[in-house]
Amino acid sequence: MNKVSLAEKFAQFDETWSPKLVGTVDDYDVKIVKVAGEFVWHRHTEEDEMFLVVGGAMTIKLRDRDIDLAEGEFFVVPKGVEHCPVAAEEACVMVFERRGVINTGEGRNARTVLQPERL
Amino acid sequence: MNKVSLAEKFAQFDETWSPKLVGTVDDYDVKIVKVAGEFVWHRHTEEDEMFLVVGGAMTIKLRDRDIDLAEGEFFVVPKGVEHCPVAAEEACVMVFERRGVINTGEGRNARTVLQPERL
Repeated sequence: MNKVSLAEKFAQFDETWSPKLVGTVDDYDVKIVKVAGEFVWHRHTEEDEMFLVVGGAMTIKLRDRDIDLAEGEFFVVPKGVEHCPVAAEEACVMVFERRGVINTGEGRNARTVLQPERL
Repeated sequence: MNKVSLAEKFAQFDETWSPKLVGTVDDYDVKIVKVAGEFVWHRHTEEDEMFLVVGGAMTIKLRDRDIDLAEGEFFVVPKGVEHCPVAAEEACVMVFERRGVINTGEGRNARTVLQPERL
């Protein structure tokens, strides 16, 4: 039951595409992640997923268009919608989603993080 | 299914303590609110409530201590915990909480907003 500084939390790790748990609201998780390059196409069948750019810029690629996000912008990927996050340069992102959502959705691959580390 | 710029949304209104709905994640609401001065003591019996300061600074007063939040800091008020948000100067805040949570909790008063406007 302490406050969280996003800058302090982002300073605690370097790896990209590895979400860290920094808070919970009921059974929803507040995660932060550093992104750079291209992730993998995936979807979350049952859950929406919110991306809020805290620093830098990123793109959420959808099958029919790209959502370009600058700092202070967010996008909610609706449940069931395929998406692929990409970033030309490293960006800092906050993610809000139901507890237990896996970063690669239904897929399991080298990028899958089943249990995000709590910072 | 569009992205949201927090700055653009905050530019659309002036009133304080009147939350606006700017997004949803499953059955959770993303709201923004401008705060200035002192709100009212209240609690949400069944729901946690997350405050993320987007611009400025604010304090979440609890009965036993104050949580001072600067830009880029957040705090989750646990369900059932009495709190009173205050801000010496106007601040811009993002709130994340379950759909249907009323800003004044169990209380009904001049500050109560039963149905936040969607921006």
